[in-house]
Amino acid sequence: MSYFRENIQATSGYIPGEQPKNPDIIKLNTNENPYPPSAKSVEALHSYVIDNLRKYPEPVSQPVKEAAAKVLGVDTQEVLVGNGSDDILTVIFRSFAGEQDTIGWLNPSYSLYPILAEIQGANQRFVELDENFELPTDLAEQAKGCSLFLITNPNAPTTNSFCKEKIREFCKSFEGIVVIDEAYGDFAETNCLELYKEFPNVIVTRTFSKSYSLAGIRVGMAFANKELTAGMHKVKDSYNVNALSQTMAAAALLDVDYFEETINKIKATRARTEAELTKLGFKVNPSQTNFVFAIPPIDAAEYFQALNDRNIIIRYFKGGRTGKYVRITIGTDEEMDKFFAATKEILT
Amino acid sequence: MSYFRENIQATSGYIPGEQPKNPDIIKLNTNENPYPPSAKSVEALHSYVIDNLRKYPEPVSQPVKEAAAKVLGVDTQEVLVGNGSDDILTVIFRSFAGEQDTIGWLNPSYSLYPILAEIQGANQRFVELDENFELPTDLAEQAKGCSLFLITNPNAPTTNSFCKEKIREFCKSFEGIVVIDEAYGDFAETNCLELYKEFPNVIVTRTFSKSYSLAGIRVGMAFANKELTAGMHKVKDSYNVNALSQTMAAAALLDVDYFEETINKIKATRARTEAELTKLGFKVNPSQTNFVFAIPPIDAAEYFQALNDRNIIIRYFKGGRTGKYVRITIGTDEEMDKFFAATKEILT
Repeated sequence: MSYFRENIQATSGYIPGEQPKNPDIIKLNTNENPYPPSAKSVEALHSYVIDNLRKYPEPVSQPVKEAAAKVLGVDTQEVLVGNGSDDILTVIFRSFAGEQDTIGWLNPSYSLYPILAEIQGANQRFVELDENFELPTDLAEQAKGCSLFLITNPNAPTTNSFCKEKIREFCKSFEGIVVIDEAYGDFAETNCLELYKEFPNVIVTRTFSKSYSLAGIRVGMAFANKELTAGMHKVKDSYNVNALSQTMAAAALLDVDYFEETINKIKATRARTEAELTKLGFKVNPSQTNFVFAIPPIDAAEYFQALNDRNIIIRYFKGGRTGKYVRITIGTDEEMDKFFAATKEILT
Repeated sequence: MSYFRENIQATSGYIPGEQPKNPDIIKLNTNENPYPPSAKSVEALHSYVIDNLRKYPEPVSQPVKEAAAKVLGVDTQEVLVGNGSDDILTVIFRSFAGEQDTIGWLNPSYSLYPILAEIQGANQRFVELDENFELPTDLAEQAKGCSLFLITNPNAPTTNSFCKEKIREFCKSFEGIVVIDEAYGDFAETNCLELYKEFPNVIVTRTFSKSYSLAGIRVGMAFANKELTAGMHKVKDSYNVNALSQTMAAAALLDVDYFEETINKIKATRARTEAELTKLGFKVNPSQTNFVFAIPPIDAAEYFQALNDRNIIIRYFKGGRTGKYVRITIGTDEEMDKFFAATKEILT
């Protein structure tokens, strides 16, 4: 007999990507940013008055909300700040889906969603992407009855952005909450932030873990109308974001120049990576994210292992439609050069 | 019509104690520690390699677990580290109680428990403390059928520790999970940490927010046997504690000398406060925490307001059995002197 709820017993829990201790390893496995955090963000950390740490932090991360308002043109009352976007997703699942409800998402997509649904004890619905990893034409039909539906845009691990018009149509017709998870939105040509202003049932999420080089501080944001935002604030932990992370995140948001510089560098390296891999015989999905998703000219699992043996870690999702692919995070140009060299060695 | 679950619609959410911006205010309202964090903990923060923040933190806060193992004599596999003990409580509620289950606690006690139960959509059971705020003799009978029961020890806001033998008896007979919430345990003469080793259904929780002067970094811990601990790890967010907080918490735990020095200073000031208030006509509960709970010789709400007018904030819980009392955090000796002077002024 177990003390745990049955759904908790049944879940395997989320398995995070490996964080190796060896500094010689080239880490292209968890979609982290290869560039350091904004110097202004680091400066903000250094000028933080440490004695204040004995006190509780600002409960709703007001400094981050104010920076977001300035930079993204949102209202502070339309922002929820979380302990990473994992916390944001947890708050959303707990807010909108109980044990009788159904939560849906696209497949393949972020593998955390099914785990969060299991923990919530809710029903799950997987809606398959079409053969090009695009939204199925009958998405509205397939999502019907879900109280919560998640669209990852651009999608992970498939790297493509979905057509905004199609997302808009879906938001309009869907009766529950639509989450547009834009963890990788900053690397894309376009995004759906505006949709939360158009529809009362839309939540757009963002993270500091990718485009802001701050995975270590755990900050994420959700944007939604005031009513949804106020309700989600009741569900979040009272002091969910620590004081140091609030300080760094606010400063990073305001440092727009560095943000753009980093994004542009990553996009340039991404274009080079796509070209190089194509030359080497990979079938590469054009990427709107900070990683590529590609079919290697040899068995994907073997290729993954061969890179691993050369101290380069990428990600491989066994089985199903993703089993033919590998996911490779965009590193610095220097890291990618080593990665190309290793790949050539493996393929010859 | 609302998009939220009914239980979320119904909850008011937790109202955290006020965090005033005015630095002249003497803040005795949220049980924060008046002394700064450990210098070794600050040193650890300053020597943290900032570039690492671009990467995800250690997912299970291994450095904190190892420090806890060293200092508290626990096994690292018996420790869950959380984003504050709020996160720990959230993980526990989600792990052990679904919508059909009942969660119980003592009353009066920590006002977050009913909110967390509401968010979980679970049933609630309040077990009243006796006229001396002690455990009722029929606790086992009253708690029967709950899948989860929380004992705050020492209790907040009543400041007393419960008899360990009685807690032990309860843990032995109770069929669900017992949480012994020791947020204030470091200020007490004795604690119940050993009980998680004796019983397979016991979880003991601790926080860095009070005794370690680190409310701002949000770190808490739970101790339980390996099976319970492993299961709760599936429920926590994958990277629930940021890298800077892990670094500071681990160093603070290892700085045992500073910890003891601070605790002893607070205990001495607490004794002085109890004596002074008794002299002034308060009925003071002997405290095992870093605050006192006392009946003023005038109306409690009026007294609270009069202090407020003098820029001293304490806490007042309107209504019920607590409405006669005020809760006063132990500050520095200097702060308490100003508090005594203001109190004398109000009473004469």
